Parts: sequence; structure tokens; C-alpha cells
Amino acid sequence: MPVPRAIIEQIKRLIPPLDGSLHKGQSGRVGVLGGALDYTGAPFFAAMSALRFGADLSHVICSPTAAGAIKSYSPDLIVHPILNESSTSDQVTPQLQSLFTRLHVLIVGPGLGREPYMQSYAKLAISLARQRGMYLVLDADALLLVGHDPSIIKGYRRAVLTPNVVEFKRLSEQVGVDPAAPANERASIISNLLGGVTILEKGPKDVIAVDTTGEAADLKESQLEGADAEKEKTKETVEVDVEGGLKRCGGQGDVLSGSVGTFMAWGKCYEDGAFG
Amino acid sequence: MPVPRAIIEQIKRLIPPLDGSLHKGQSGRVGVLGGALDYTGAPFFAAMSALRFGADLSHVICSPTAAGAIKSYSPDLIVHPILNESSTSDQVTPQLQSLFTRLHVLIVGPGLGREPYMQSYAKLAISLARQRGMYLVLDADALLLVGHDPSIIKGYRRAVLTPNVVEFKRLSEQVGVDPAAPANERASIISNLLGGVTILEKGPKDVIAVDTTGEAADLKESQLEGADAEKEKTKETVEVDVEGGLKRCGGQGDVLSGSVGTFMAWGKCYEDGAFG
Repeated sequence: MPVPRAIIEQIKRLIPPLDGSLHKGQSGRVGVLGGALDYTGAPFFAAMSALRFGADLSHVICSPTAAGAIKSYSPDLIVHPILNESSTSDQVTPQLQSLFTRLHVLIVGPGLGREPYMQSYAKLAISLARQRGMYLVLDADALLLVGHDPSIIKGYRRAVLTPNVVEFKRLSEQVGVDPAAPANERASIISNLLGGVTILEKGPKDVIAVDTTGEAADLKESQLEGADAEKEKTKETVEVDVEGGLKRCGGQGDVLSGSVGTFMAWGKCYEDGAFG
Repeated sequence: MPVPRAIIEQIKRLIPPLDGSLHKGQSGRVGVLGGALDYTGAPFFAAMSALRFGADLSHVICSPTAAGAIKSYSPDLIVHPILNESSTSDQVTPQLQSLFTRLHVLIVGPGLGREPYMQSYAKLAISLARQRGMYLVLDADALLLVGHDPSIIKGYRRAVLTPNVVEFKRLSEQVGVDPAAPANERASIISNLLGGVTILEKGPKDVIAVDTTGEAADLKESQLEGADAEKEKTKETVEVDVEGGLKRCGGQGDVLSGSVGTFMAWGKCYEDGAFG
């Protein structure tokens, strides 16, 4: 199924013009939250992809156990080692809030890992980002959080979830998708059950689905109070028919989350009137 | 002596197909155990070679004294700094066990060094890997362990030892090869004495030998209980007649161990039915 022309036209309008009219930051300021003892490559790939894709500034918010390595991969990244295991939420909250005023999107998950303090900071960051109406991408081990407690993202349609085959299967079970549901409708069903969160299901063919017609969809939860409730109701599924790389090595999902995040940052810049 | 066609045909079947049918990890997950105060390049070369050779994911299990440098060489590696001098075996054992569930092969030795705690963790890891029936490559300073106590690898035919000229000479003495034995039969004799471990003797011409006809060869020791004892008896020696690089700088052995490990990981994927 080719991507409909209408969607291509919308995407084109979100791409910042390269005509000298914008200043630094107006083509996207991206944040990646992840990186701890085991994983340092994943947040790098996500943050670096954002820059290569066209963002102006790319930040990594990580544990001090990962910061040195991530910084060393590239001087292009701005790395904030504030997710300290020995800090408290009360200490980290104002630091995150301050950083979030400078970001258009937050990508949570690449290299997050499963250490309890990192999972707990990720949950805090998602909650703070929602309060601000920030765009969110949840990937990798951030999807664990959603599975354990779907309420952290429920109804928040400014979020994209990017599960791979294994993560999608787990998420389907955790949010209660009928096991008899057809495979090509499951992403849409998850979106519906989560109240309009976009699902980007990775696999042999990627499926992108959004369904904001369900009961859980709520404009207020998404900081969309002024919008027309009827016009905001949509149910769309796109199957990506462009062949991807045949080699499935580690890091490819991180590149995707960085690229998706950049599009969302551009959407925010567009929404803010930076261009268009 | 050219490599027999039958072996080439076997090898071809072990190479994962690049046709989009496999997902991340099914073309090999490789682990390298090594890297401490002095050596950080060796485990990098082994782990990176595994990726370049075609593995999907490559892990390094090392001392915290080496992790920062190894991480900084490449974001493609997943580096676990769990071999802490001040930890106990009881603390590290479950960490290794958890990691091993995610690996198809473990390469022990590149950059291992001779610090007692690293030698002791290497011995622990070999023992845990054997319990799981994992494929093993022992190289460099891991060969010291075998020399001191051949029982750690005896009878375990899922292992490949890759001694260079100096290591081979020492190993020959330590396992008791008759000094009068012809040079081109010694690798096979060591394999026999060690119960079917494969010997990859590096030198002007590499010799690869396996002899599982000896008394020390035991199917149970190799987690091959179900196999036909007679069919599993083999005695083969291959001399590699392809000319190698003439420059013999440091790191080449590490590249070899990473490449051999990748083949073994593919063998495990094949055994598991991922393809073929």
C-alpha cells in the first residue's frame, strides 16, 4: 500500500525550509533519554540520527555511568549526565523541567536499560513531558513501562510508540488485544485502547496506525483543549511498502526513533509558527 | 592442501541468508570476555570483527578499568563492565548467567591479561558456559588457564582453542605431547588429549585439527547426550594454504578469534533452526 498523497503533502509542509530564514534551533531541538551502565551506543545512534536527519540540536539525558562514552562518540551531541542513581526525584525534576523548555520532542528508551533507577527516571520524565504537552517517542525499554502501567501514556496522542516484533507482541498482550484479532489490525487496536497514541509497529513491513475514535481518547489529556473534537477523530493505518535493509543488526531501531523524533520536532516547530 | 569441498559446502550452509527472513539477533549474538587495566584494544578487535564478519550483536564483558575506553571505540558494541576486582564470584555469577542466555558464543581471552581476578572470572565464565552447552573460543591469556588446568576444557568439543606459535608450544608441553611427535600432527594430538576440542594452530600456515576418537572425548561432557557416539567420532586436520598478510602486528589474533566466534554463533543459530 503506497503512502497516500495527502500524507506526503502534509509531511512536505513539516520539513523546515533551507532558505536562511530560520535561526539555530528552529529546525528542531531533540532530546533522547537513555544510556546507563550497559548501553551507550543506542542513545548515541538515536541522537546522532536526529542531527543527520536534520535537527539543529540534539541532547542526550543519561546516567553518569554512560555519559563519558556517549560524549566521546561525537562532539555534536550535548550530553547531560543528570540521571544519577544516588539523586532523588526531587533533585532531578527541576533539572528535567529546565531542559524540557529547550526541547521540541523527547525520545525515551534507547539504551534506557532495566536498572530500577533508570526506569523510574524515565517514568518521571514521561510524566513531566505530558504536563508540558511535549511530543514523545517511546522505544525499547521505555515500552516496558507502558506495558506495566498503560496509564502513563493513555490518552496522550502526542506520543508515538515504536515496538519491534518482540515488544509488539508483549504490548498487545499487556493492553489486552484480542488474540484472535487480525495481525494487520492490531497496531490500530492498540492505538484505540491507548486513546490515540500512534503505534509504529516494526517488522518485515512496518505498520503505522492511529485511532483516536476510542473512549480513552481525550483532548484534555493531550493538551488539545481548544481543538474541535470531531475533527480530531481519525483512524488511519499506513503499511510501509518500501523495502528496508536486509541485515538486522543492533542499532537500527535507535536510528528510527531518532528520525521519527526529528519529524515530531519539526511538527512542533511548525505548530509554533517557526515556518510554514 | 586445499580445504575439502565437503567442508566448504558445510560452511556455506551455516551462513545466514540475507533475504529479510531473519530478525535482529538471528544472525548471531557474540560475546567477548576480556579487557582490563592493560588491554582494551584486543577485546575491541575481537568484538568488532564479529560485527564486520556478520554477527548482529556483539557484547564485551570486561573490567570497569577497561570499559570506558572500549565503549568509546565504537557505539556498535554493548560493553558490560561487570568483572569488578572488588566483586565476588557469587555476585558476578548471576550477571554472567543472565548475559549468557542472550549469547550464541563466548570468546574468552582477548585482552584478558593475567591479573588474578580476571583469570579467575575467565575460569568461572568457562565453567558457566560449559554448563549451558555454549560454544566457546579460547584465545590469548585464556590459554594459560587451559595449560594450568586442562580439565577446564577437557572433553568439551564445543570449544575452539586458537594458540599462536608461542602459546602452541607451551600448550603442547602442558598437555603432554610427545616432543618427538611430527610438527604437523601435534594439533591433532592436543585435540585428542583434550577430548575433541578443536585446535586452530596459528603459524606460517594455520592448522585446524579435531580428533574426537580419544578416551577423553565424551558426549555428555559436550552436552551431546542424544547424539550417535560412532557418528560423532571424527579425526580431521585441515592446513590452511591461503596466504595471509605478511605483516604480523598486534591485534590480528583478536580479529581471528572474533571471526571464528561468529562462525560458531552461526552454527548455533543453524542448530536452533533460525534458518537452513
